[in-house]
Amino acid sequence: MMVGNKWYQSVWFSNNEVCLIDQTKLPFKFEIFKARNYVDVVKAIKTMIVRGASAIGVTAAYGIAQAFIQGNLEEAKEKIANARPTARDLRHAVEHMINFIQKRIEENGKVTKEEVIKEAESFANTTVENCKRIGKFGKRLIKDNTKIMTHCNAGWLASVDWGTVTSSIYMAKREGKDVFVYVSETRPRLQGARLTAWELYNENIKHAIICDNASAYFMHDVDIIIVGADRIARNGDIANKIGTLDKAILAKEYGVPFYVASSTNSFDFNCRTGKEIPIEQRSEEEVKFIDKKLIANKDSKALNPAFDVTPRKYIKGIITEFGIVKPSEMKDLVRRVRKMKKKLER
Amino acid sequence: MMVGNKWYQSVWFSNNEVCLIDQTKLPFKFEIFKARNYVDVVKAIKTMIVRGASAIGVTAAYGIAQAFIQGNLEEAKEKIANARPTARDLRHAVEHMINFIQKRIEENGKVTKEEVIKEAESFANTTVENCKRIGKFGKRLIKDNTKIMTHCNAGWLASVDWGTVTSSIYMAKREGKDVFVYVSETRPRLQGARLTAWELYNENIKHAIICDNASAYFMHDVDIIIVGADRIARNGDIANKIGTLDKAILAKEYGVPFYVASSTNSFDFNCRTGKEIPIEQRSEEEVKFIDKKLIANKDSKALNPAFDVTPRKYIKGIITEFGIVKPSEMKDLVRRVRKMKKKLER
Repeated sequence: MMVGNKWYQSVWFSNNEVCLIDQTKLPFKFEIFKARNYVDVVKAIKTMIVRGASAIGVTAAYGIAQAFIQGNLEEAKEKIANARPTARDLRHAVEHMINFIQKRIEENGKVTKEEVIKEAESFANTTVENCKRIGKFGKRLIKDNTKIMTHCNAGWLASVDWGTVTSSIYMAKREGKDVFVYVSETRPRLQGARLTAWELYNENIKHAIICDNASAYFMHDVDIIIVGADRIARNGDIANKIGTLDKAILAKEYGVPFYVASSTNSFDFNCRTGKEIPIEQRSEEEVKFIDKKLIANKDSKALNPAFDVTPRKYIKGIITEFGIVKPSEMKDLVRRVRKMKKKLER
Repeated sequence: MMVGNKWYQSVWFSNNEVCLIDQTKLPFKFEIFKARNYVDVVKAIKTMIVRGASAIGVTAAYGIAQAFIQGNLEEAKEKIANARPTARDLRHAVEHMINFIQKRIEENGKVTKEEVIKEAESFANTTVENCKRIGKFGKRLIKDNTKIMTHCNAGWLASVDWGTVTSSIYMAKREGKDVFVYVSETRPRLQGARLTAWELYNENIKHAIICDNASAYFMHDVDIIIVGADRIARNGDIANKIGTLDKAILAKEYGVPFYVASSTNSFDFNCRTGKEIPIEQRSEEEVKFIDKKLIANKDSKALNPAFDVTPRKYIKGIITEFGIVKPSEMKDLVRRVRKMKKKLER
């Protein structure tokens, strides 16, 4: 999307470097972080220079291509895949690239650097295409004068371009619909107040930042909630940024439809239910400090789960690149996606 | 309560100054703000140097005494009473002091400075006594190994001494019960992370700070939620710090008993339901800045309601100085309090 008068994606590959808009610096500074090797890639993912399930996935795909070129794929692949535990896309991307490389070697006896880079680029392009397809389905949920609430950032920063949640909003806006977005700030890392608000401002979408705990207060004024997902279990339970579950329960109480926007790259066929999704526990420093400044009682400890699991019962639909599915229809979708992946692997 | 090895209350009157522990500086600095006149008193309330319904009430009572001494009662009384709109205690305290002064003048033809100061001190002492009585009732809800969640600060800072919510916790602890408190940080002003955490640390109570939006994540581990109140309507609806309603709805969903601890000074006999309670909308700067540092996208606006209203249907009981009442029993309590007040006024 546009930043000022220049078009950017949040992740790209150039001169054998994985280039990332540094999301820890936004909206205060617009800086590009260039990962020169897999150590940099792992650092970028762990420290959230890049965050958002899809963007992490694409970063990992490029990271694998880079490691292949640099001849350290074996040591790189597990480190990249394990850089963060919750988002499914990360492992998915690593597996996708490794499968590609192995398949080529099996078929042709070798695989070239150019082929591997091209595959990572194709993976990135598919990610963007998926976002656009999600947007085309999701925009139908957004009528003129709709008030949307979202949480964290499932925007173009989080998914290379367009975004999973924001694509529907951007497309509805481009069709001339008037929309308003309640952006919950998303403590502790403030991705809502910093990244989503920045994105929406750049796209000229009306919005207001609210504290996460003002969600119930504004719920009577919300027409629809749309959030992203870091992992989706087979039964339709989803893991997403901490605070998503709070909103899902409020939505139920107020009769507000609660949607999840996500590509099927976040599906984890090995997870039967959300109970099996590992939840990352991050440092207490993230809660007690903002930009290195202490904001809490220094002698108290803090707990900092980075994600929560929203059970399927709270979810009206999951907006995917294949259409909007109810959690109860997940079986069909899982079957379809599995079949498609097998076909691709052949 | 103790601060280090010295005993403090959060509000007192000394040398004709209203003395306040500066709650905007805690836990980083322990400073006393001395209000020399009603302009200072109003400033202290507005800027939250003093906050918490009961502490604001006592500050107002001393402020009225000070204005009486300084001969500017007429101009002071409305300005003090209107310094903040939501907490009932503020108006209650002003009315109490004005009634006292008028009654004395009616009865004796005059009222002395000493009498007015003594009345304000008596008002402060009653506030503390109410907290202790609330604690004696509330501690019965806290068994050994209870995990409590609270929000914002309804501790001794907020109510001169003991606190409305924390009195029960402090008393349970002193009886040897093992308790653990989830302290939600309470954006935007972080009264949980700064004040409640500081209080609990000083009283050696096990606790952890969590982001407000981690409430649902931890709800399965919570035995009881206890929050304060800034105003209570006749039907039992309550206004309290923004985010209280979110917790009440989560509590319902998880079957966690949700209690409100408050003296009857927060009762507003003129409010039939919570819908009539005015909600203070504070500056967006409070959301976008922390300690004067910008933390959000600067071009985005923010909305900052300071309170929300929790309907009675979510409240299991209100812990008052007269005992624990169900919202459905509010009528009896209101009648009792009214009778008592009339008696006092005679």
